[in-house]
Amino acid sequence: MKIFIAGLGLIGGSFALAMRDRGLADEILGAERNGERAAEALRRGLADRIVSFDEGVRTADLTVLATPVDTIPLLAVKALNRVGARQTVIDMGSTKAELCEVIALHAARGRFVAVHPMWGTEYSGPQAALHGAFAGRNVVLCETERSEADAVALVEGLFRALEATPVYMEAEEHDLHAAYVSHISHVTSFALANTVLEKEREDRRIFDLAGGGFESTVRLAKSSADTWVPILLQNKYNVLDVLREHIHQLQLMRRMIERDDAEGLRRTIDRANSIQRIIR
Amino acid sequence: MKIFIAGLGLIGGSFALAMRDRGLADEILGAERNGERAAEALRRGLADRIVSFDEGVRTADLTVLATPVDTIPLLAVKALNRVGARQTVIDMGSTKAELCEVIALHAARGRFVAVHPMWGTEYSGPQAALHGAFAGRNVVLCETERSEADAVALVEGLFRALEATPVYMEAEEHDLHAAYVSHISHVTSFALANTVLEKEREDRRIFDLAGGGFESTVRLAKSSADTWVPILLQNKYNVLDVLREHIHQLQLMRRMIERDDAEGLRRTIDRANSIQRIIR
Repeated sequence: MKIFIAGLGLIGGSFALAMRDRGLADEILGAERNGERAAEALRRGLADRIVSFDEGVRTADLTVLATPVDTIPLLAVKALNRVGARQTVIDMGSTKAELCEVIALHAARGRFVAVHPMWGTEYSGPQAALHGAFAGRNVVLCETERSEADAVALVEGLFRALEATPVYMEAEEHDLHAAYVSHISHVTSFALANTVLEKEREDRRIFDLAGGGFESTVRLAKSSADTWVPILLQNKYNVLDVLREHIHQLQLMRRMIERDDAEGLRRTIDRANSIQRIIR
Repeated sequence: MKIFIAGLGLIGGSFALAMRDRGLADEILGAERNGERAAEALRRGLADRIVSFDEGVRTADLTVLATPVDTIPLLAVKALNRVGARQTVIDMGSTKAELCEVIALHAARGRFVAVHPMWGTEYSGPQAALHGAFAGRNVVLCETERSEADAVALVEGLFRALEATPVYMEAEEHDLHAAYVSHISHVTSFALANTVLEKEREDRRIFDLAGGGFESTVRLAKSSADTWVPILLQNKYNVLDVLREHIHQLQLMRRMIERDDAEGLRRTIDRANSIQRIIR
């Protein structure tokens, strides 16, 4: 199979490696606007050659859009404008409602499958691409009833070969849940990093006290603005809704601490502990 | 050496295992108020026998206070009331100012070393005790100028044997930095867990979207109220100060998202990224 990947960063690059490692790609074409990143991607074997978007889409069996989410809806339309009846286009973005709305009535909508693999790291660019990505994770497929059966089957088969498990959601539903489970965690982590950078004037002391829990809550704060500004803005209403609740929860805890309300804090922490039933 | 550990939970229990694994303990006595936990601690070999606080302190070369931080200052006084010139008392608590103030003018202050090993997990109780704890971590010693040299040397030697590195701080300084680097992360994590539990009515969808970053930011939310209510209240003013800044940072991001301020979000995230220079 000939695969064309637009965007050879963390996700696109890791997908390229995974396809190659499983022997699923005869040839991988890549598009990457940034010249340095393109060169790095070639050096790392994430693509066999860099081509234009037009050439990539026209010649590949599978086109993969792995660019920031604000660019995906138009690229999806442009890709669908170019594909034939046996070619498939997928995206890898973290938001789905805007994309699915934009392509909804495209004549070639059936050739598109909206995909969100639940895997990532806080690093970005071709140098962040990893072998073995996606294994053991879920991959969300949205509105598969609007995709042709063979296109869905192809995507399911490829991800199953990578040991990922397909789960199915409506686009709006996906964006709502993604705001709760992923996007808010990034906002919190960015804010926490800036809190500490603002308040803690002695970096040395952060090193000294490493191990106190900070690393895990702030890990996501290394994630890139290129990826995350578009996600937060495209999922604006869901993110704002969860963010308001999160600030409210912090204000409740602040008031309890101010009032030495040990009982209130205990109830709050006990309730938070029940997250154990959901994550291991 | 005979060691007496008051509180055979995560920290006290892991210290017991570490001392035994390195052959540093001839006998380990333990005190544990809760009968079930005491039985569990004995089953797991965290102590050879359960004794009264009085017997433990009087007979041990080293007494270790590993109970919640609200109980440590008085236990420290009571331990110092009972020790002789060659016995040493240490604590393992996450706050230090209140403790160091309470024991400051005790006649036997020199026999006490205030210790905070920078290691922990989100689990608690004897069943949470792990082998190999503390290795590769820092251990903060506070106000060592008030401890006798042999007591400090004993503690430094023991933790070095566990491959931990002593670092030195004033008690007030420790509590300030611990609020930035550890305590605020716990508050954020509890609040985030409650946000999601409040907003996300479909647990199933949290499982489906696992891998999106939520796990790492919410891991600490499994930490126990017994441990954390006393820490947050004892370090109240520092925690409130950092918490106010954190809520402010979240409100700034909220306003940027509301206004579609991509440039502001980009600057905010770029700034947050600089946490990379501090944590790997």
